[in-house]
Amino acid sequence: MFALAGKAAENLRKIRADKPLIHNITNFVVMNTTANVLLACGASPIMAHADNEVEEMVDLAGALVLNLGTLTDDWVTTMIKAGRRASDLGKPIVLDPVGAGATPLRTNAARAILFQTWVSVVRGNASEILSLAQQGSTTKGVDAIHTVTDAAEEACKLARELGTTLAVTGPTDLVTDGRRTLMVEGGHPLMPYVTGTGCSATALIGAFLTVDKDPLTAAATALAYFGIAGETAGARAEGPGSFLIHLLDALYTLSPEEVEARCRIGKG
Amino acid sequence: MFALAGKAAENLRKIRADKPLIHNITNFVVMNTTANVLLACGASPIMAHADNEVEEMVDLAGALVLNLGTLTDDWVTTMIKAGRRASDLGKPIVLDPVGAGATPLRTNAARAILFQTWVSVVRGNASEILSLAQQGSTTKGVDAIHTVTDAAEEACKLARELGTTLAVTGPTDLVTDGRRTLMVEGGHPLMPYVTGTGCSATALIGAFLTVDKDPLTAAATALAYFGIAGETAGARAEGPGSFLIHLLDALYTLSPEEVEARCRIGKG
Amino acid sequence: MFALAGKAAENLRKIRADKPLIHNITNFVVMNTTANVLLACGASPIMAHADNEVEEMVDLAGALVLNLGTLTDDWVTTMIKAGRRASDLGKPIVLDPVGAGATPLRTNAARAILFQTWVSVVRGNASEILSLAQQGSTTKGVDAIHTVTDAAEEACKLARELGTTLAVTGPTDLVTDGRRTLMVEGGHPLMPYVTGTGCSATALIGAFLTVDKDPLTAAATALAYFGIAGETAGARAEGPGSFLIHLLDALYTLSPEEVEARCRIGKG
Repeated sequence: MFALAGKAAENLRKIRADKPLIHNITNFVVMNTTANVLLACGASPIMAHADNEVEEMVDLAGALVLNLGTLTDDWVTTMIKAGRRASDLGKPIVLDPVGAGATPLRTNAARAILFQTWVSVVRGNASEILSLAQQGSTTKGVDAIHTVTDAAEEACKLARELGTTLAVTGPTDLVTDGRRTLMVEGGHPLMPYVTGTGCSATALIGAFLTVDKDPLTAAATALAYFGIAGETAGARAEGPGSFLIHLLDALYTLSPEEVEARCRIGKG
Repeated sequence: MFALAGKAAENLRKIRADKPLIHNITNFVVMNTTANVLLACGASPIMAHADNEVEEMVDLAGALVLNLGTLTDDWVTTMIKAGRRASDLGKPIVLDPVGAGATPLRTNAARAILFQTWVSVVRGNASEILSLAQQGSTTKGVDAIHTVTDAAEEACKLARELGTTLAVTGPTDLVTDGRRTLMVEGGHPLMPYVTGTGCSATALIGAFLTVDKDPLTAAATALAYFGIAGETAGARAEGPGSFLIHLLDALYTLSPEEVEARCRIGKG
Repeated sequence: MFALAGKAAENLRKIRADKPLIHNITNFVVMNTTANVLLACGASPIMAHADNEVEEMVDLAGALVLNLGTLTDDWVTTMIKAGRRASDLGKPIVLDPVGAGATPLRTNAARAILFQTWVSVVRGNASEILSLAQQGSTTKGVDAIHTVTDAAEEACKLARELGTTLAVTGPTDLVTDGRRTLMVEGGHPLMPYVTGTGCSATALIGAFLTVDKDPLTAAATALAYFGIAGETAGARAEGPGSFLIHLLDALYTLSPEEVEARCRIGKG
C-alpha cells in the first residue's frame, strides 16, 4: 500500500544533494514563507517576475512555480512567457490556481497558462481545481467548498481532459494523472490557519519534480513529506504561529529514513 | 465600566462561526502577517489588488480593509474603486493611513479615500490620524509623535468633521465617533517592535465590523481582543520574534469567555 | 586584534538612542523580515518605493537601503532617483546587489546605481560582489560560488576601482575599502537556510552608517553584531524556523556590553 515510501525518501535525499534552483513567480503574501519552505527542504529558491528577466531565470532553474495569488494582468503575461520558455526547454512547471473560480481574472489566467504552456502538475483545493472545468462555480475566496472524496472522480476525468496531473489537497490529498490515482494522508488541522501552506506544498512539488520525472509520484511524495512535517509540527504547536515555526524546523530536520517510515501514500 | 466585555466575546464568537471573508488591499510588508492574524482570529483573508478584479472581490467579501503602506498612485486608484463598490453595497470599510502626514502622497491618498468612499473606521497612531485634519504636520515615519491623551479632544472633533469613527492606537487606545468616546487598555511594550501590529489591528477591526453594525463598539472590541492577545504574548515572549509567534497563538486560542473576563474598555 | 569591539557597542548604543529612520527600497520576499530586524536593533524602518514619494522619504531618513531582489525596470529608475537625492544630501546608501551576475538585469542595475549615486557600502556574497567587475560570470541564483578567502584580494582591488566599501559575507565576512581590510567572525550554519538573512545584514549596515561615518567600521560592526545574534540564535534553534525567531529576539535583547565582549573583528 505504501510502496512509494522509498521513493519519497529517495526524492528528498536527491533534493538535499542537488539543491535545485526553483524559480517562483508567486504572490506577495507567501513569497517569504515559500522561500523558507524551499530552503528548509534543501532546495534553492529564486523569486523573479521581471518581464525582461524571467526567461533567463528559467534557463538557470530546475523547475518553474506559477502561483495566481495577488494576480494582475501583467503578471499573467509574464507567467505565460516564463512558462513557454520552460515548456520549450522541457523543464517542469507547477501551477497553483489560487482563487480560481472566485473571479474571472483568476479562472481565465489559470486556463490561459494551462493552454499555452506544458504544466506538469496543478495543485489546489477542490473548488479551485474543479473550477478549471466548470463555468459558473463560485468559491468562498480560497477556501474549499467540496471534499476531496467528492472530487475524486471529477478530478480524474479533468486530468485527462487537461492532459496534466492534478493534486487536490485537503484533509486527505488526492493526486491523479487521469489513469492512476493516489491518496496521501498526513497534515494537521492547524494547517488551514496558516497562510501559504497550500502555496508551500505547490513549491515543494516543484522541487520534487526536478528529481522525479513522473509528475504523479513527484507530487504525491512531495505532499507526503509536507504532511509528515505538518504532523510533527502539529504535535508540538500551541497555535498557528508556533505551528509554522515547527513546520519549517521539521522540513529541515526530517531525515529521509523518517519520511520513509511515516509515509502514507495509498491507491485511490 | 467594562460593559462592552460581553460584546467583545459575542463578536469573537460570531467571527469564528461565520468565518467572514475580509478583502485586504494592503502593503507588501504586512500582507503575510495580516493574513495570519485574520486566520488566527477565525476570519478568512483575501489579498487582491487587480484593478479588474477588486469590485468582484468586494462583492464576495464581508468587509474591505484599505492600508496605505508601500503606496503608489495606481494602488490609490484601485483602493478608491474598491471602496466605492463597498460603499454602494453598504459593506464596511476600514482605512489604515500608514505614514499619513509624512508625505503628501500618503496624506492626500487618505483624504481622497475618506472623501470618495464611506469609511466606517480609520485606525492609526495619533500623528497619522491628526494629519488628516492638519496641513503641515510632519511625522517621523510611521511612529507616533503625540500621546493618545493629548489627542483625545482633537480626535473627537475630527471624527465629527470627517463623519467617521477614529481608532487612535498607542499604549492606551482611543475610539471615538465624535459623540461617544471609549478607551481600551491592553497590549504590550514589545508591540511597536514588531512590524505590522498596527496594520493587524486594522484588519481585525474589519473582521469585527462584519458582525457588529456599530463602528464604535466593533473597533473597541477588536482592539480589546487584540490587546488581550498582546498581553498573553508579552508574558511569554523573550523578544519581538517570539512575541509575534505567541501573539498568533493567543489570537487563535483565546476563548470568548477569557476575552470577556479580561476585557478593559472604559468611557473616555 | 578586536579593537573595534568598543566601536560595535558604541554604535549599537547610539542606534537605540537615536532610533534612526532607515528608508528601504527592497524586495518583496524580505520586506517583512528586514523591517523586523531593523526594529529589533532599535532603528525605525520605512518601506517606500513610489516614484513621486521616494525623494521626500529620503529627506526624512538617516540612510537609504537599495536591494535588487524581485527587481523590475521601474524599481531601478526609482532606486536611482532616491539614490541621487541621498547623494545630494550626503546621506549614506547601502546597496545589496541580490542576484548580480545571474542575469543582465541585476548586474546592469547594480552598476547603474554604483555609477549614478554615491554608495557607501555594497553588501553581497562573493559571486554577487565579484560580478560587479567581471563580465560573463554566472551565479547559481543568489548562492555564493566563491569562498571569501578566494575573494579577498579581488574584492580589495574592486573596492578601489568602484570607490566604495565592499562587505562580502559568508562563513567569515570580509569588509574592505581598498586600503583597509577587516575580517568578521560570527554567524551560524543555519543562516543560509533562512531567506533574507543577507538582506537583513545589509539593512543593519544602513542603520550603523547613521551613527558611524566610516563605512568600513560601520559595516564591520554591523556584521559583528548580526553574527553574534546569529550565534545566540543558533545555540537555541531546532531548525531554520526557530532560528529566525531566536535571531530577532537576540538582536533585541543583546546588550552593547555583550556585543563588545563577544565581538570578533580582525585585520584581513
